[in-house]
Amino acid sequence: MTRYSSHSYLLSELAEGLNATLYGDAELRIEGLATLVDAGPADIAFLANRAYLGDLANTRAAAVVLHHELVSQCPVPALGVDNPYLGYAQLSHFFEPELPSRRCGIHPTAVIDDSARLGADVTIGPHAVIGAEVVLGDRVSIGANAVVGDYCRIGDDGLLHPGAVLYHGVVIGQRVIVHSGAVIGGDGFGFAHDGSGWHKIAQLGGVVIGDDVEIGSCTSIDRGALDDTRIGNDVKIDSQVQIAHNVHIGDHSALAGCVGIAGSTQVGRHCQLGGGVGLAGHLTLCDGVNVTGMSLVTNSIDAPGVYSSGTGSMPNALWRKNAVRFKQLDELARRIVRLERRDSA
Amino acid sequence: MTRYSSHSYLLSELAEGLNATLYGDAELRIEGLATLVDAGPADIAFLANRAYLGDLANTRAAAVVLHHELVSQCPVPALGVDNPYLGYAQLSHFFEPELPSRRCGIHPTAVIDDSARLGADVTIGPHAVIGAEVVLGDRVSIGANAVVGDYCRIGDDGLLHPGAVLYHGVVIGQRVIVHSGAVIGGDGFGFAHDGSGWHKIAQLGGVVIGDDVEIGSCTSIDRGALDDTRIGNDVKIDSQVQIAHNVHIGDHSALAGCVGIAGSTQVGRHCQLGGGVGLAGHLTLCDGVNVTGMSLVTNSIDAPGVYSSGTGSMPNALWRKNAVRFKQLDELARRIVRLERRDSA
Amino acid sequence: MTRYSSHSYLLSELAEGLNATLYGDAELRIEGLATLVDAGPADIAFLANRAYLGDLANTRAAAVVLHHELVSQCPVPALGVDNPYLGYAQLSHFFEPELPSRRCGIHPTAVIDDSARLGADVTIGPHAVIGAEVVLGDRVSIGANAVVGDYCRIGDDGLLHPGAVLYHGVVIGQRVIVHSGAVIGGDGFGFAHDGSGWHKIAQLGGVVIGDDVEIGSCTSIDRGALDDTRIGNDVKIDSQVQIAHNVHIGDHSALAGCVGIAGSTQVGRHCQLGGGVGLAGHLTLCDGVNVTGMSLVTNSIDAPGVYSSGTGSMPNALWRKNAVRFKQLDELARRIVRLERRDSA
Repeated sequence: MTRYSSHSYLLSELAEGLNATLYGDAELRIEGLATLVDAGPADIAFLANRAYLGDLANTRAAAVVLHHELVSQCPVPALGVDNPYLGYAQLSHFFEPELPSRRCGIHPTAVIDDSARLGADVTIGPHAVIGAEVVLGDRVSIGANAVVGDYCRIGDDGLLHPGAVLYHGVVIGQRVIVHSGAVIGGDGFGFAHDGSGWHKIAQLGGVVIGDDVEIGSCTSIDRGALDDTRIGNDVKIDSQVQIAHNVHIGDHSALAGCVGIAGSTQVGRHCQLGGGVGLAGHLTLCDGVNVTGMSLVTNSIDAPGVYSSGTGSMPNALWRKNAVRFKQLDELARRIVRLERRDSA
Repeated sequence: MTRYSSHSYLLSELAEGLNATLYGDAELRIEGLATLVDAGPADIAFLANRAYLGDLANTRAAAVVLHHELVSQCPVPALGVDNPYLGYAQLSHFFEPELPSRRCGIHPTAVIDDSARLGADVTIGPHAVIGAEVVLGDRVSIGANAVVGDYCRIGDDGLLHPGAVLYHGVVIGQRVIVHSGAVIGGDGFGFAHDGSGWHKIAQLGGVVIGDDVEIGSCTSIDRGALDDTRIGNDVKIDSQVQIAHNVHIGDHSALAGCVGIAGSTQVGRHCQLGGGVGLAGHLTLCDGVNVTGMSLVTNSIDAPGVYSSGTGSMPNALWRKNAVRFKQLDELARRIVRLERRDSA
Repeated sequence: MTRYSSHSYLLSELAEGLNATLYGDAELRIEGLATLVDAGPADIAFLANRAYLGDLANTRAAAVVLHHELVSQCPVPALGVDNPYLGYAQLSHFFEPELPSRRCGIHPTAVIDDSARLGADVTIGPHAVIGAEVVLGDRVSIGANAVVGDYCRIGDDGLLHPGAVLYHGVVIGQRVIVHSGAVIGGDGFGFAHDGSGWHKIAQLGGVVIGDDVEIGSCTSIDRGALDDTRIGNDVKIDSQVQIAHNVHIGDHSALAGCVGIAGSTQVGRHCQLGGGVGLAGHLTLCDGVNVTGMSLVTNSIDAPGVYSSGTGSMPNALWRKNAVRFKQLDELARRIVRLERRDSA
């Protein structure tokens, strides 16, 4: 792995940052973060999944973040915490590279409408375009070639990566990250049929996005038809996701890659949609629903839990036979009923 | 919902625009469009689905667009029409915001090849790039950071949203809308295998798009291998769609989000593909085929109608048991046959 | 089909380029490439699939590339080869248009960091942005509005189409093609849950891409969490594909459109994933695995071969009945067992 950063911390500094209990040499200097297996003598590692406990004894790491209970088994200095995976998450930010391209201030090639209002310490990359009446909070960073449409508002510490596009009137909370190629506020897919062809319905609603949301690369979130499409707080959306007009996503929900949600569907809080999941339109999923990968949901769900559809994969030769039988399944079921009747006669 | 426009119309103007019969005060001033439930006293609402008939009596709307037959039940001034959903579509365009960024003329930062020919009243946004020999019709609008490749032609009233990309030689009809992040004319996925690895096949065909087409955000339409990929008139394509090389889509068809169509498949006229539908390559779908969401079609379809594949979703615990049985389905069917034989023996 | 190129070759030149045996007039002048059916008297055609053998007798082509064995059946001059589809692939590159926009050198509107190192004959299009410490090999071509992040390296003859985005530190081999809208190096989807909400895990790994790779439009390849996401040599990736963090793809594998691969999954060499295939996370697919379109794979595969999941499509009325029965499938199977027990009692 290429490293471009040259951060270095005392183990005591990391302990403080993680609110961890330090076991061992507080003055140890830590220069990187790695897995138990890959860590070298200047790296800190972590043990978040006990399946990897066997790697602990032989680690070459300088120190390890792990659960308090396991500190006694750690052969090197340790940071004891309650939630080591969270510890890893916190630790990771200490080692993020400082990219030169994020230090450009307002690049002279950016085109910024005179009516836009920019907060303190805003960064705007080369060739970015900021529309009329836009309001950017403090420390907002707009990547190269990104476009922020008229009347958009982005809260403090927002980050648009290069080439992201916001249509007009998109409202974004604080600490939101939008990855490259994502498009927010495009027209919802609304047409009226006159019997012979389609008439476009102007999409007059907006998109409102909460705080602490992350939106993956090449993801589309369409604007509402009349009301707004709404993404709650702390919602995490992966790449290649399609969110149609008037969809609502509840707080703390997570959508994996390639999810597609049709119009006006409402997803509750703390829901998780696996990769490639499809939700039909006008459904309501209650809080705490978990849908496994590539399942299609065509009815509302009113009880939390795990839901699935589809068939497992199998060798194609076997699958072909079974798939043929699936087309006969109702008929097969009727034949079972018939056999049962005769049997009990 | 945020509003950025300040349109206002007399009810008589809207009646004329919709070719509707006006019941009530022609001088009423209408400032917005909303649902029956949300409309305020300056808004016009609509009743397109009789499921919402119960909302009519209590609406606070200034006026309502609805079917002639229902005018007598409308407590406020009404516009009577034959197709209220079409009425809503027509009405929506009266309330579209006029965006400052669409009034930029030819932005000085746009890079336009000297050989490009621009029609009257063309708008080209900041940092857009227009290639050699491009022809843009009247009133074409090219968004910020969009790229129009060499030899492309866009008909009158075309609209490319920010960041859309046309490769070279894409031919687009009149009144076509291309949303941000869409890529038209990228290379089809064509390779020859020499027994050990792949050799690229240069994609020498083009893309030809009819009139009144809309193409969603982050959608890909690949250029043909030798001939052209063809999208008919009045075809509506949602976001995150993949259309491979040499595909033909017939007039008036609609493709919902996340559809994928493999190479050389031909889709008829007036077809509808639900979200996430996949069509294998080299198929022919006749006119009037409707495929429900996330179905996979691997054979040609020669009769209009509704087609589906997959299983419904269910609680994961139940699904696991059923999915295991699916792998045994052919064997189960044979066991039914055996039972029937014995039974009838 | 629109043609923008005016190439012309002697048949002998093409024979030499394909290492083919020439039968007939070496001085024939060839101006285009087309199918047997569409070829005109200045075109060369090819016969790669014997299903089209019937078109050979009536072709108007000037010459035909075909298998040595079939030369005697060819009514016009011929180029005899062992692998005519490969011959077509090789031939196609003779007829690629030379686009004016690729002859721009370093466009004056491109923003190139002073620390970037550019090889010989590099082309950088309008408004492209090249970050700090970037290294571009000889003959690299960066399209309009593309963005190359800090510390990226692109090998000789690399081609980024307009609007493609590389985040920082992406390492790309030689002769790699990245299509428009593709995003390489975006953050992997990694979050730790603290019991109430999500904490982002900084994605500190990179993306390493081999030689001769092609990456389709609007495709996402995420950077690794700690280690790198790795794409082998001669891997071909279609449009709308999602490749999550820490995925490895082996040499010579091909991924069709809309494929989604979850985190840390390893795909072997010479694998083929059909359109819309989904691979769950942390799987290993051995070399030579072929997964048919829209299948979901949730377990590792350790034997080469063809794998599938799902059901075939059918008329919706039939499908509805069968889908209901699928939910009863385990129960139906138990009833078969019961019948068998009674039957044998």
